[in-house]
Amino acid sequence: MKIYGNPMSTCTRRVLMTLAEKQAKYEMVTLDFMKGEHKSPAHLARQPFGQMPALEDGDLTLFESRAMMRYIDETVPGQALTPKDPKTRALMNQWWSVESEDITPPMATIVFERMFTPMRGGKPDAAKIEEAKKKLAPAILVLDTHLGKGGPHLVGDSFTLADISFMPYLGYFLQTPEKDVVLSHKNVAAWWKRISERPAWKSITEK
Amino acid sequence: MKIYGNPMSTCTRRVLMTLAEKQAKYEMVTLDFMKGEHKSPAHLARQPFGQMPALEDGDLTLFESRAMMRYIDETVPGQALTPKDPKTRALMNQWWSVESEDITPPMATIVFERMFTPMRGGKPDAAKIEEAKKKLAPAILVLDTHLGKGGPHLVGDSFTLADISFMPYLGYFLQTPEKDVVLSHKNVAAWWKRISERPAWKSITEK
Repeated sequence: MKIYGNPMSTCTRRVLMTLAEKQAKYEMVTLDFMKGEHKSPAHLARQPFGQMPALEDGDLTLFESRAMMRYIDETVPGQALTPKDPKTRALMNQWWSVESEDITPPMATIVFERMFTPMRGGKPDAAKIEEAKKKLAPAILVLDTHLGKGGPHLVGDSFTLADISFMPYLGYFLQTPEKDVVLSHKNVAAWWKRISERPAWKSITEK
Repeated sequence: MKIYGNPMSTCTRRVLMTLAEKQAKYEMVTLDFMKGEHKSPAHLARQPFGQMPALEDGDLTLFESRAMMRYIDETVPGQALTPKDPKTRALMNQWWSVESEDITPPMATIVFERMFTPMRGGKPDAAKIEEAKKKLAPAILVLDTHLGKGGPHLVGDSFTLADISFMPYLGYFLQTPEKDVVLSHKNVAAWWKRISERPAWKSITEK
C-alpha cells in the first residue's frame, strides 16, 4: 500500500493514524504542498480535486480519507476499528457523521484562519472565526453530553474509526486561541487526553 | 423500524429512498417543520441537533441519515446496495465522500437560498449563490469525467448507497435557475435521468 500525502495534512493524518493503529506496513510518498506537488498532473490523475492524500493498493487508486480509513480497516489484519455488531456499528457511523457534518467544518474554518492564513501572509478573518465558533459550540456540547453518559470512547468500550476521524483537526484546533470552546467541556477534554496519548497518535505527530 | 422525519426533507429522503429500494416495511412519523416539531423536546431526545430524520429500531435510536442508510442496507434483507468486494466498496465510499464533502455543501447553499429563503419571506443572497456555483462547477466536472469513463452508476454496474446519497439535493437543485451547472454535463445529466426514473425514487417523491 502506498500513501501520497503529507504528515502535516489533516486528511493524511486520518489515514496515517488508521495505519498506525493497525500496525500496517506501507510506503509513504511525501508531497510538498508549499511547492504545489498536490496540484501536479501526476497527482491530479490520482486525486482529481488536487488534494491529499491518495492511496494505491495493487490496481486500486483511491482518494477521500474517510473511504481509505474504511478500506484499510477492512483489508489489513489486526485490531478491528469497526464494531462487528450492526447497532454499535450504526452508532459509530452516526458519530462519524457528526464529525464530518457538524464539527470538522467550523473547526477547519478556525484552523485555516489561525494557522494557514498567516502562513500565506494574510490576516485571520475575525468575522469568519466568530461565525464558526457559534456553529462549533453547540455541536461540542452535544458531544460532551454524549461522552458524559458513557465513554471512554465515542461508541463505548472500543476505540473506532469515528474517534480517529476527529483527531487531526482537533489536534490543530487545540493550538488556536479558540481552544477553550472545546477544553471547557470536561468530558470532551478527558476523551481528547485519552485518545491523544495513544502510541499510534504519538508515532505520527511527534516525528 | 420507525422513521421520524418529513417526506420533503432532503435527509429524510436519503433514508426513505434506501428503504424503498430494499422494499422494507417501516412506520413513518411525519414531523411538521413549519410547526417546529423537529425542535420539540421529544424529538431532541432522539436527535440532539433538532434535525430530521431519526430512526428507532428496537433498543436503537439513531440519527444522521448516512449512518441510517448503512444500517438499513446491512440489516434489511433484499437487494444489496453496498458492493461486497472491498475495492469496489472503497470506491463507493470515495464517491459518497465526494457527495458529502464537495457537492452537497454548495448545492445545499443554492437550494436553501432559492427555495427555503423565499418560503420564509426572505430574498435569495446572490453573492452566496455565486460563491456556491464556483465551488460546485469544478466538482460536477470531476463527477462528469468519472461517469464518462464507465457507468451506468457511480461504481459501475451496481446502483449503490452512493448514488442514493446524491439524489435528494440534486432533485431540488434541478428546480432552481442554476440547474444548468449540472445539466450542461451530459454524463451527469444521463445518470440523473437513469436513477431518477427508478420506481423507488418515484414512489417517495411523487406522492
